[in-house]
Amino acid sequence: MIDYRNLRVALLGAGVVGSQVAALLLKHADELADRAGAGLELAGIAVRDIDAPRDVDLPRELFTTDAESLIVGADIVIELMGGIEPARTYLLAAINSGADVVTANKALLATHGPEIFEAADQVGAQVYYEAAAAGAIPIIRPLRDSLAGDRVQRIMGIVNGTTNYILDRMDLEGAEFADVLADAQRLGYAEADPTADIEGYDAAQKAAILASLAFHTAVPLEAVHREGITRIDKTMMDAARRAGYVIKLLAVCERLTGEGTGGGDAISVRVYPALIARAHPLASVHGANNAVFVQAEAAGNLMFYGAGAGGVQTASAVLGDVVSAARRHIAGGVGVGESTRANLPVVEIGRAVTRYQITLEVSDLPGVLATIAGVLSDGRVSIATVEQALIDPATGETTSTATERGAATARLVIGTHKAREQDLSETVERLAESDVVGRVVSVLRVEGD
Amino acid sequence: MIDYRNLRVALLGAGVVGSQVAALLLKHADELADRAGAGLELAGIAVRDIDAPRDVDLPRELFTTDAESLIVGADIVIELMGGIEPARTYLLAAINSGADVVTANKALLATHGPEIFEAADQVGAQVYYEAAAAGAIPIIRPLRDSLAGDRVQRIMGIVNGTTNYILDRMDLEGAEFADVLADAQRLGYAEADPTADIEGYDAAQKAAILASLAFHTAVPLEAVHREGITRIDKTMMDAARRAGYVIKLLAVCERLTGEGTGGGDAISVRVYPALIARAHPLASVHGANNAVFVQAEAAGNLMFYGAGAGGVQTASAVLGDVVSAARRHIAGGVGVGESTRANLPVVEIGRAVTRYQITLEVSDLPGVLATIAGVLSDGRVSIATVEQALIDPATGETTSTATERGAATARLVIGTHKAREQDLSETVERLAESDVVGRVVSVLRVEGD
Repeated sequence: MIDYRNLRVALLGAGVVGSQVAALLLKHADELADRAGAGLELAGIAVRDIDAPRDVDLPRELFTTDAESLIVGADIVIELMGGIEPARTYLLAAINSGADVVTANKALLATHGPEIFEAADQVGAQVYYEAAAAGAIPIIRPLRDSLAGDRVQRIMGIVNGTTNYILDRMDLEGAEFADVLADAQRLGYAEADPTADIEGYDAAQKAAILASLAFHTAVPLEAVHREGITRIDKTMMDAARRAGYVIKLLAVCERLTGEGTGGGDAISVRVYPALIARAHPLASVHGANNAVFVQAEAAGNLMFYGAGAGGVQTASAVLGDVVSAARRHIAGGVGVGESTRANLPVVEIGRAVTRYQITLEVSDLPGVLATIAGVLSDGRVSIATVEQALIDPATGETTSTATERGAATARLVIGTHKAREQDLSETVERLAESDVVGRVVSVLRVEGD
Repeated sequence: MIDYRNLRVALLGAGVVGSQVAALLLKHADELADRAGAGLELAGIAVRDIDAPRDVDLPRELFTTDAESLIVGADIVIELMGGIEPARTYLLAAINSGADVVTANKALLATHGPEIFEAADQVGAQVYYEAAAAGAIPIIRPLRDSLAGDRVQRIMGIVNGTTNYILDRMDLEGAEFADVLADAQRLGYAEADPTADIEGYDAAQKAAILASLAFHTAVPLEAVHREGITRIDKTMMDAARRAGYVIKLLAVCERLTGEGTGGGDAISVRVYPALIARAHPLASVHGANNAVFVQAEAAGNLMFYGAGAGGVQTASAVLGDVVSAARRHIAGGVGVGESTRANLPVVEIGRAVTRYQITLEVSDLPGVLATIAGVLSDGRVSIATVEQALIDPATGETTSTATERGAATARLVIGTHKAREQDLSETVERLAESDVVGRVVSVLRVEGD
């Protein structure tokens, strides 16, 4: 047994992830010391309520409610409290007292990342946050280091396990959103208040973090376009399936070449439910799993797949950061700052370019298609495919038999070529106002060509 | 434009990967400087023959045949010559002269890794080798850093593009090995001398590197069990397809819990063609792509997917390492050494435990199955499934109609439960000697449960 120098590790928070981190730090202490080249002494665990029930049994003497004192003298501070305050204050205090910090706090990084990285830079500390995006999947180091010599063109990520679980079950079982959500809540896949997940807030935070890394640009959370999955219903899901697609909530981070000021590049960061072809690797990401698909100029297509959440899974990512922090502490030298000097402009959703699938209910009259094609063409939206199905007035379902043809309405599914979001949304507005259109059933982006 | 400190980068080798690295270093110089926090000045390119044809046009004045002089005074040395010597001598010289080194040389690392890491450790230099396993796929940092706090249980990797290309086409087209190999050579997917790929040598080198990282143990190349794919024929491929499997050349690195001396863990590292269920994520890795599937105690299942070879793809991984090396140079501190203190014993293939599929030609006589079941049971190999098909004596194909039942031979496909390799191979020998067995058609491991 080697007699290592001991590093003092302070843990802030003992929730689902924190309690697993503490348990693994204690259980694998010798092994981790061998890997880090330093003993990792869990100096204490700061919590609000020492007597709160925990997932894991931990030595009571480690707990304290005094986070400030615990931070003083720590070599490594692990922040797993979540939320903005007091997490932000504690992280800054840790950095300023000379500690390296490890955090899984995506909300904090997405909103106060630059402040925290700047503070670390000032004192030569390092901020580790592998667990802040896509849970256990190693995606931060690949983007930050492995792809640092490449030029990322596009990231498409399934980065929220709850919504993927819901959409996957809707797809596999033909179930309705509300039913699956209720079941997901019962099974613990969704929170009692599911807003952060189903409205895309969680995914948007991760998108901001991934885009910042991939494009070497501080991407503020406000610049991320966000749509949730609450409008996705069984009808849309069924129609997608019939057309060879599946609907996934995607975080898309994209380089728009030559679209920046002065002909430089710009970036678009957006979260929305999108159609993706069944043959695309992201289409076969099932259940609560996550995956991040990266397209880079030189490396080509890469995909990173794994568990996106879960206490022990996320603890794996946190502990990897702790070992890295310890190795750096031993090796000496200052921390490596975030690379944000590319400073690319983030454009509004209106300038994003994708394909679309527009589903309309129209009266089944001669000339309708010509009218609609005219509206699209005037709006600079080019049609790639059109499919028309009659709707059985009795059942409301699509049918191939024309019963009382004159009275029937038809459903028109239009696939477009690539178009600007702004052109598309204006065109859809004009379609909705058109006399021949009964109802705009759905407008979905198509990603992953 | 920030006035960065310049780091001198020496490139050794200008082959398929090296010429792309040089081109990208020159093309993206400003961007890379912003990311590294230092200018990356390509000081020169050492080659054997300055006038040799290259894939990319590069400034002639950069070329030199004097590698030794180029290395002196370099901050970062990129070794892309391949082979053991003089690559080893140059790398050691670079390390000893104070440079950080980047290499994609899997043969060198698999055979002389410990010597090189030890030399780097002595002077506080860092060795980067993201491109040495699985090409453009970031797998080294995830194993080394992201999973450093976890306990890897098993890696199953498709780490050789050539063999995956061949097996994939055999599977999709029902083609014979020799025909696909010839075509692969014509298309540039296989070398004129394909031995290193099809006999599994390349995969074995990568397996040694991945296992060393995953298990914090220096795994010598000789400890890797290696079988190639030359014995895989159309019949085996077809049989696998009918049974819901596909055959892939897998690098398996596995922790054997409690199987080491004194009840500690041991590891098994092996490369062979194996059956894998169609539903497994590795089964859908097509063409020349690579993927590494990692099972870890806390993180669960992870998969890393991408291009396993190719000049520009591999150059992406090399340049990521160059930027990392530059950042470390600027940050100061000594390099982080390889973590090999777990020092787990690597066991022989005989102690590996997997499931098997044994295909036998037997005479279709009463009592044959009982005899065979007895041989298996005596050898401690437990039967999970048995399938019997008659063989049409006219065509040699399996048939379900018994023509002249007495004279026919039958094909028996036996799926076993998990068994020790040594028990299995001894049992198969006894089967081959048995009077009721005409021929052992194939024995394949089944991986990925």
